[in-house]
Amino acid sequence: MERIYLDSAASTPVADEVINEMIPYLKQQFGNPSSIHYFGRETNRALQLARKRVADLIGATKPLEITFTSGGTEADNLAIKGTAEYVRIKDPSKNHIITSYVEHDAVLEPCRDLERLGYKVTFLPVTKECLVEPKVLKEAIMSTTALVSIMYANNEVGTIQPVKELARIAHESGALFHTDAVQAAGKISVDVNDLGIDLLSMSSHKINGPKGVGALYIRNGLEIMPIIHGGGQESTMRSGTENVPGIAGFGKACELAKARMTEYENYVSSLRDYFVDKVLSEIPYSRLNGSRTSRLASNAHFTFFGVNGEDLIIKLDESGIAASTGSACSVKKQKPSHVLKAMGFSYEEITGSLRISLSMKNTKEEVDRTVNVLAEVVRELRSLSPFKSKYA
Amino acid sequence: MERIYLDSAASTPVADEVINEMIPYLKQQFGNPSSIHYFGRETNRALQLARKRVADLIGATKPLEITFTSGGTEADNLAIKGTAEYVRIKDPSKNHIITSYVEHDAVLEPCRDLERLGYKVTFLPVTKECLVEPKVLKEAIMSTTALVSIMYANNEVGTIQPVKELARIAHESGALFHTDAVQAAGKISVDVNDLGIDLLSMSSHKINGPKGVGALYIRNGLEIMPIIHGGGQESTMRSGTENVPGIAGFGKACELAKARMTEYENYVSSLRDYFVDKVLSEIPYSRLNGSRTSRLASNAHFTFFGVNGEDLIIKLDESGIAASTGSACSVKKQKPSHVLKAMGFSYEEITGSLRISLSMKNTKEEVDRTVNVLAEVVRELRSLSPFKSKYA
Repeated sequence: MERIYLDSAASTPVADEVINEMIPYLKQQFGNPSSIHYFGRETNRALQLARKRVADLIGATKPLEITFTSGGTEADNLAIKGTAEYVRIKDPSKNHIITSYVEHDAVLEPCRDLERLGYKVTFLPVTKECLVEPKVLKEAIMSTTALVSIMYANNEVGTIQPVKELARIAHESGALFHTDAVQAAGKISVDVNDLGIDLLSMSSHKINGPKGVGALYIRNGLEIMPIIHGGGQESTMRSGTENVPGIAGFGKACELAKARMTEYENYVSSLRDYFVDKVLSEIPYSRLNGSRTSRLASNAHFTFFGVNGEDLIIKLDESGIAASTGSACSVKKQKPSHVLKAMGFSYEEITGSLRISLSMKNTKEEVDRTVNVLAEVVRELRSLSPFKSKYA
Repeated sequence: MERIYLDSAASTPVADEVINEMIPYLKQQFGNPSSIHYFGRETNRALQLARKRVADLIGATKPLEITFTSGGTEADNLAIKGTAEYVRIKDPSKNHIITSYVEHDAVLEPCRDLERLGYKVTFLPVTKECLVEPKVLKEAIMSTTALVSIMYANNEVGTIQPVKELARIAHESGALFHTDAVQAAGKISVDVNDLGIDLLSMSSHKINGPKGVGALYIRNGLEIMPIIHGGGQESTMRSGTENVPGIAGFGKACELAKARMTEYENYVSSLRDYFVDKVLSEIPYSRLNGSRTSRLASNAHFTFFGVNGEDLIIKLDESGIAASTGSACSVKKQKPSHVLKAMGFSYEEITGSLRISLSMKNTKEEVDRTVNVLAEVVRELRSLSPFKSKYA
């Protein structure tokens, strides 16, 4: 069976150029980058090159503004807990954090952990399109606010937040601004200086790099506390022998992503628009969720009324098509999406939802086949539904 | 130049069988293990197989006792901070930790961070051979002791600690026992049940697995707090998309290590003994440090009196030989080894030290060439020393 992968927001295959970049650091160049001999110097050089490439992707001025982590989740934890702790040590009155209801669990859960430790956390509401409105942040921010953390683009519905405006508001009140850019960096042009971002989380495996690597951009001069202590690697911000092959691969993935950025946005967004139009015209009682304008090129998120999204995924899987109901990370929790809830969706609207995330590897033919299967599966599932007369 | 690598305690090359195990999870099988579709199921299966293989290496009863981390350092941080925090929440009087002065920074630094958070930490002294004596632990342990963390084998001088006896003493006082087995697991036979260990840290890249992966064994039924929060992967103990290729590789490395264990110990220890005897007989004013009997097969640690170890490393490197003065992780700190200090070494004894760590890839011919170069380099450096008359 020729399989169709429409879940690139969950993970992506590692590009051949990236694998080629990694292999030497598994085989011949295996030294510990902290060793002062030949083998150590070779791997240290690889770290420097990768750091430069990652910095370049997001417009960071200095490579040392990049701290490598084991992934986006660790980067989010480091940004939030590391900043909150550092700021509170300097000024104990600064114990307030602002985030939103639609963040990834990698942001929400560290925030909840901070609540346990006595911090106050405000979760901002969003619009029906999943937007965090600047005026809402303005109302919530206080002189005690240490950090505002709002994601760059939502992982479920693809909505891109007005981060430049949000960062400006944070700074006006003397707060720092962090953004979880795991779904954005490498897919849309990001410039930390233009946007005024203090901390930015990235992930490698969402942009054809290997799993197990990510990075936190920490603006030059800004100090935060580490969460993993030890040998003092990564300028003491993140101890542990560096994952050299992974980091080298991540660096290459960033270089590739930067080079293909325009081509990616053009190709993927036009394929996505073709997909959306075809679904909306061929499948009755279907709806596109999220924003039409402020949206990741790769994301299409639908509600098919009268259908259970989980059943849809399973039926699509039987036809060799991989899609998702939402965040892969929250599948095990088996609870309705907190993002769609925050967008004001009813239980039925949440239940019938499907996320499609495209990449440059997807083709028009794949979209055609997928919409055909979708139409058939939706019809079949509706015919079995107790509400079938409603969507006949 | 034919290079000789004698620094396997710092890092090791990834075995070909391990690379072969990893490649499919970079290329074709790239799904997010949390996804419920085909691609997710395939990578999930890889995690299960790896978990079983890692568990088997250390005699763990259940694969779910293994929590994958980004490496040994993260495993140590999770064990120490996660346990200390969990125990104190349950019983606020339990705020005392015991460790030793000769631990790796990945243990010492989290302990210092706990001191900052109000915990009391006792650092145990060691003998001249680097042994933590059970009676010393017995004297230090209290009813408030939550955790005892003593390494399995020292990374600098290779001394193997009496962990079974130490674990027994910890349990008698109602404390938990953690061991940093980063240098031991995969090199000597470890059985967590026989030894009565509650938590054990492992690293992949020390045993021909990839960098960026490690694991924490957490005894079944034991609860600790996570340090990285998010999507709830690894039974909520460690969030973040799993590093599937790295984990698959680590699993294979554990399987290989288990299969070769006896062969490894026999070959490497006899090569090490040959090395030691040759050095001691051919290089005057040289001394073997650490224990003769309770020692890792791979480790040889010398003091060459009247010589600076850093100069020695550089001279050896010029001849294509990679060795170390001690822990690679502490090179950047440029301070005298805390391990040798705790062993009661004088400044001169510390300065003249050299760590050689062997593997199955090393040969008798390499040892011969190395000792020849060493003898010459030591002679040369001594001739330039202000104390040359002392060691002529």
